[in-house]
Amino acid sequence: MTGRAVGVDVGGTNVRVALVDADHAVLHRVAAPTLRGDVGSLVETVAGLVEDLDAEGAPVGVGVAGIVDHDGVVRYGANVGLSDAPLARLLRARLGRCVVVRNDATVAMWGEHVAGAAVGVDDAVLLTVGTGVGGGVVTGGVLLEGASGLAAELGHMVVLEGGRDCTCGNQGCLEAYASGTAIASRATARLATWDRPTSLPDAPDGSQVVDAAHAGDELAVEVVQEVGRWLGVGAAGLVNALDPAVVVVGGGAGEAAFDLLAPAMVRSLRGHVYGLAHRTVPDVVPAALGDRAGVVGAAELARTAALDAR
Amino acid sequence: MTGRAVGVDVGGTNVRVALVDADHAVLHRVAAPTLRGDVGSLVETVAGLVEDLDAEGAPVGVGVAGIVDHDGVVRYGANVGLSDAPLARLLRARLGRCVVVRNDATVAMWGEHVAGAAVGVDDAVLLTVGTGVGGGVVTGGVLLEGASGLAAELGHMVVLEGGRDCTCGNQGCLEAYASGTAIASRATARLATWDRPTSLPDAPDGSQVVDAAHAGDELAVEVVQEVGRWLGVGAAGLVNALDPAVVVVGGGAGEAAFDLLAPAMVRSLRGHVYGLAHRTVPDVVPAALGDRAGVVGAAELARTAALDAR
Repeated sequence: MTGRAVGVDVGGTNVRVALVDADHAVLHRVAAPTLRGDVGSLVETVAGLVEDLDAEGAPVGVGVAGIVDHDGVVRYGANVGLSDAPLARLLRARLGRCVVVRNDATVAMWGEHVAGAAVGVDDAVLLTVGTGVGGGVVTGGVLLEGASGLAAELGHMVVLEGGRDCTCGNQGCLEAYASGTAIASRATARLATWDRPTSLPDAPDGSQVVDAAHAGDELAVEVVQEVGRWLGVGAAGLVNALDPAVVVVGGGAGEAAFDLLAPAMVRSLRGHVYGLAHRTVPDVVPAALGDRAGVVGAAELARTAALDAR
Repeated sequence: MTGRAVGVDVGGTNVRVALVDADHAVLHRVAAPTLRGDVGSLVETVAGLVEDLDAEGAPVGVGVAGIVDHDGVVRYGANVGLSDAPLARLLRARLGRCVVVRNDATVAMWGEHVAGAAVGVDDAVLLTVGTGVGGGVVTGGVLLEGASGLAAELGHMVVLEGGRDCTCGNQGCLEAYASGTAIASRATARLATWDRPTSLPDAPDGSQVVDAAHAGDELAVEVVQEVGRWLGVGAAGLVNALDPAVVVVGGGAGEAAFDLLAPAMVRSLRGHVYGLAHRTVPDVVPAALGDRAGVVGAAELARTAALDAR
């Protein structure tokens, strides 16, 4: 497992590219705004950043916010405005290198597995709590990909059939209850009838709520704990289905609010796991790599793929 | 993969034992009632049946209705009345052979994978609809076991947080909505306010409801379709998480009612899967091996384990 690789994280706002060495250290980083909705522009942005790194033909791994199949086709990515876009093929043609494209939370899970919160853990789950809720799964030491590569869309598992509208068009998805967006919308809804003191503005965003909760604002604390409770419901379903040894909580909101979320999440997890008295319950831990998880995991997948291709 | 093996299926009512050849054909079967709640009696029952088969030291695979860890300890099995029972160790000591013990639905999944409805399918899910709802998962051609061997308790994933009481002590589990028991209890509840003709008796059991539904009884059909709808919600969560190519429906009620369940299940599955317009939806198929799935899968696991141990 020698040599360097390039990791790329394509989010709704920015494209971040990093050169990563064989020990998973990030050597150099560059970024540019995401031009949404046009795969040609995205290919040029990524290719330009990769060339800026002067990485001398190093293989390229890409994580994209969307569902991505085994062939590296972005089947659907609302936040990046792509559907059925053959990103891997186009990048390979443009760069002339080994290119691997996967879902962003899946590569982040791999990053946490090889260099972060799940090192040495062969069965682990990552829940990323950001604008939405993403997921990644390692089982038996292997990244869970599924029949078409579309596995681990953990934010769209139903936890309350017929419940809150989700951005995906369904109702009752975990994401509708446990995302940063849900933190903001719940706080706004609760404010309408809240008659005790609060430091929150009228329509707070998720990070304002998390900041207020850290400062002890009662309403903000309640909203964040409620999200923790829902994350525990979702995590319990994953524990029942996958029996991980560790559940990692990542994503911007998840990491910022981890200390406030975790106790409610663990309580709820324990309350929903099957056979509690006769089993261990996995550790719930914060992601360790922050926003580097995606580039580190993507780079490692690319390095492995390049070695396999020799 | 030569040689014969013994498959054992320990259910709440009967212990069934079969001699299975290397091509997964069942050569001979014996059975006895399950003596619940006493692991010593269970060991004697299984050992006696295995010896009756005259299988000459063939390895023994056992599927048990309960959560079973990697060491073959039945951590908890309500239907067989066991907890923290080291069944594999006791059977090994009694029989002097290679013994493997796993969850019953997990071994049934393996049976369907090696010789039934999921042959050649590397990513598959089994939902068994009987007294409860059990599950098994194959991912990347490997049986999903998890960190402790407790994975695939798919009946206890929450589909309606705070909903119906489940036998496990939680609320809103898939099993509370989609088991044979749920078929019976829903029919009984609906009968209280039903004012149109029905052939159902006052407190029907699950198979009476399924039979009546096959005969066209309107209330029975509605109840079975409702169960199909919930199975679709659960299956969609599993598709989002695991991306299987096939979802197999097994278990007594699941197989008996498959033709009535499946259309509602598929509709509901399609309505809850993420990115429907950009992905294929797995086939929903009935189990092919019936009540042989458990013994065939258990025998195959034992044969493989015995070969690995050489």
